[in-house]
Amino acid sequence: MDRTRLEAFSDGVFAVAITLLALNLTVAGPGLQHQLYEHRWSFAAYLISFFVIGIIWVNHHVLIKSIAVVDRTLLFLNLVLLLFVVLIPFSTATVAQYLPVPNGDVKVAMALHSGDVKVAMALYSAVFLGMSAGFGLIFEWTLHGNHRTVPLPPKAHWPARLRFVGGSGVYVVAFVVSLFNAIAAFILIAVVAVYYIVERTPTSSAAAPDSPDDAEAV
Amino acid sequence: MDRTRLEAFSDGVFAVAITLLALNLTVAGPGLQHQLYEHRWSFAAYLISFFVIGIIWVNHHVLIKSIAVVDRTLLFLNLVLLLFVVLIPFSTATVAQYLPVPNGDVKVAMALHSGDVKVAMALYSAVFLGMSAGFGLIFEWTLHGNHRTVPLPPKAHWPARLRFVGGSGVYVVAFVVSLFNAIAAFILIAVVAVYYIVERTPTSSAAAPDSPDDAEAV
Amino acid sequence: MDRTRLEAFSDGVFAVAITLLALNLTVAGPGLQHQLYEHRWSFAAYLISFFVIGIIWVNHHVLIKSIAVVDRTLLFLNLVLLLFVVLIPFSTATVAQYLPVPNGDVKVAMALHSGDVKVAMALYSAVFLGMSAGFGLIFEWTLHGNHRTVPLPPKAHWPARLRFVGGSGVYVVAFVVSLFNAIAAFILIAVVAVYYIVERTPTSSAAAPDSPDDAEAV
Amino acid sequence: MDRTRLEAFSDGVFAVAITLLALNLTVAGPGLQHQLYEHRWSFAAYLISFFVIGIIWVNHHVLIKSIAVVDRTLLFLNLVLLLFVVLIPFSTATVAQYLPVPNGDVKVAMALHSGDVKVAMALYSAVFLGMSAGFGLIFEWTLHGNHRTVPLPPKAHWPARLRFVGGSGVYVVAFVVSLFNAIAAFILIAVVAVYYIVERTPTSSAAAPDSPDDAEAV
Repeated sequence: MDRTRLEAFSDGVFAVAITLLALNLTVAGPGLQHQLYEHRWSFAAYLISFFVIGIIWVNHHVLIKSIAVVDRTLLFLNLVLLLFVVLIPFSTATVAQYLPVPNGDVKVAMALHSGDVKVAMALYSAVFLGMSAGFGLIFEWTLHGNHRTVPLPPKAHWPARLRFVGGSGVYVVAFVVSLFNAIAAFILIAVVAVYYIVERTPTSSAAAPDSPDDAEAV
Repeated sequence: MDRTRLEAFSDGVFAVAITLLALNLTVAGPGLQHQLYEHRWSFAAYLISFFVIGIIWVNHHVLIKSIAVVDRTLLFLNLVLLLFVVLIPFSTATVAQYLPVPNGDVKVAMALHSGDVKVAMALYSAVFLGMSAGFGLIFEWTLHGNHRTVPLPPKAHWPARLRFVGGSGVYVVAFVVSLFNAIAAFILIAVVAVYYIVERTPTSSAAAPDSPDDAEAV
Repeated sequence: MDRTRLEAFSDGVFAVAITLLALNLTVAGPGLQHQLYEHRWSFAAYLISFFVIGIIWVNHHVLIKSIAVVDRTLLFLNLVLLLFVVLIPFSTATVAQYLPVPNGDVKVAMALHSGDVKVAMALYSAVFLGMSAGFGLIFEWTLHGNHRTVPLPPKAHWPARLRFVGGSGVYVVAFVVSLFNAIAAFILIAVVAVYYIVERTPTSSAAAPDSPDDAEAV
Repeated sequence: MDRTRLEAFSDGVFAVAITLLALNLTVAGPGLQHQLYEHRWSFAAYLISFFVIGIIWVNHHVLIKSIAVVDRTLLFLNLVLLLFVVLIPFSTATVAQYLPVPNGDVKVAMALHSGDVKVAMALYSAVFLGMSAGFGLIFEWTLHGNHRTVPLPPKAHWPARLRFVGGSGVYVVAFVVSLFNAIAAFILIAVVAVYYIVERTPTSSAAAPDSPDDAEAV
């Protein structure tokens, strides 16, 4: 079984999920300029989710390229990853719905600490955590049974895993933080996305395409 | 005519259908935590439909790989399969809409035996049955006229068909059960999905990729 | 410029359009069984549109395979075809919205002859006509300037064109009929779709894959 | 890292975005013919956005073909382009929502100069500008570091850039114009789209497929 359809199906799901994100952006009624301003958290959530899906797509791209064999186990592990990718438009829409409060900055600040916003942000973090864990499962699978075209030496397994736990760890932290302060968790997730795009890109593009350095989770 | 575009189009439909599933997950109004709890049946229906589409995609993958010739008959049989795949977001949304009852566990239990829930679950089972039957038609087509790259010996036809009837049979049973008890039919469909993922995966991944054992309906 | 991305993009649009069809199928409120019955015209419209898109996809598949050169003109003619394909979920939803009348058979019969239903059905026919004309434009383009890998002899041009005018002609007739009787136009479109699937398939699958016989419009 | 998945993912996003455009076309209530007339601006906006996405897809097609190396930087620059492509259905729906005014031509004319319409059209122009700038970033990237299979001579860099600034410049002008007269900005964007399709197509199809002339922004 070759990689072509696994990639085609996954790319399709990534492409649809990333495009559906913007489907939840809707404004209505008079005062468009004011409304766009009030939806600023929706746009921020859209932006972050867009790049998180983009980053995981790039990493998925690199990881699947390093794989020698496609079996049913991989196909179903991939489904677990996609299960959470598909939930991102839902969690983003939920965050966008509970973050904006239309009546002034004071109420916004209050709302950002109220119960519903925290639950929405916990859901947002949990879906990213699920996606990251699904990606970690695929990576773990590649470490065993000659699944990689170029096997990773055993002593490199733990460093590689730690990098993945580090990636997923951010979302665990964001989940816990969201229970206390939603906006702090939101900023944490945004900062990590920016870090992955700006900071890791030059290093990774210099590395070999199927080196473990390139295949890191978000 | 080659398999490439048949696979590309089918993968596109599978990918869009599986992603649209989550489009029906929406929460609104105050009390997000409580609302997420009340939508638990929606999430369960989403989860089951996601993996049923995932399983049929994997099986479709394997079955199309075994095919030597792509003709118009196959293209239209494939359309019959996709016709029902495309209906899954609709049937899932319908089940999700009629299953949750917001006012306490007693009413949930009652609702699960009321008329509308049974009709919704019958529809849910019927769409899966149509999908399974569409897949069975493609499989039947592969058995005849040198359509497989490696022909299946005639004595293996009936065992292979029985496995397919077995697959479709589960949905016939679920359809009948749904007329009496919706939740029992729901659990039956969920159990079969779990069985296909957990139980069949190791066996199947050990088998040859285009052996009939691998190409089983759901 | 190769055919790969033309096919990939077109397949993507076909796949999304065919899947979005079912997005307009929604039921709500008590009395699910009765509601499903009242939406029977929606389901019929869904079914017809699904197979019309399916048929045009199969024909597109065959036609693009016969092409030797992909230039900008072809890319934009292809966009004209896709412009109307993308409108099919809209025209189908409009027909489905204006066809069903919930209060008894007499009113249904009356509604089927009222003004709005006729306009909806004229729109439905017009979108299919636009799609068919877009396909005809691509076919016309293939006849000139060494665009086919196997050129069609000039004496075969008019018979081939007539077949295409015949295909588009059905939608012209359906458009005119819809102004007098919506249901008659609906049945005409349905019958032609069934004819293309059932009647043409065996003949076409026997013919050479890139013969002009195979590449007929709907 | 090869171009295949970059193209597949991008084609998927383009295909979904172009198909979702029509999802915002909805009519309801009695008087369908009148309603379709009142939605004429929605249909115009749909038409323009469809062809703008189509043009950028064709240009993306040509530009990616000229690339020798796919690295992480390109993948993220491509994400910036797609970020704005995905926003086009949203900006189109916003324009379509604020342009039509149902109560006679005088009010339409007035509405077209009112504040909300200008903001909607400024948003519409800004999203196209972002898309065009994203495309320009990819083009700029191709000019450096042996990224093209056939390098562009340095003296050709500025003419090529000017053509891109020219493309993006139209949207800057449209943005400024929209602050004074929404309909004028709308017509400007439409005229440029028609120009790119009708005027540039013959020239470009005569040129070599990976010449810089072919890869121009919109």
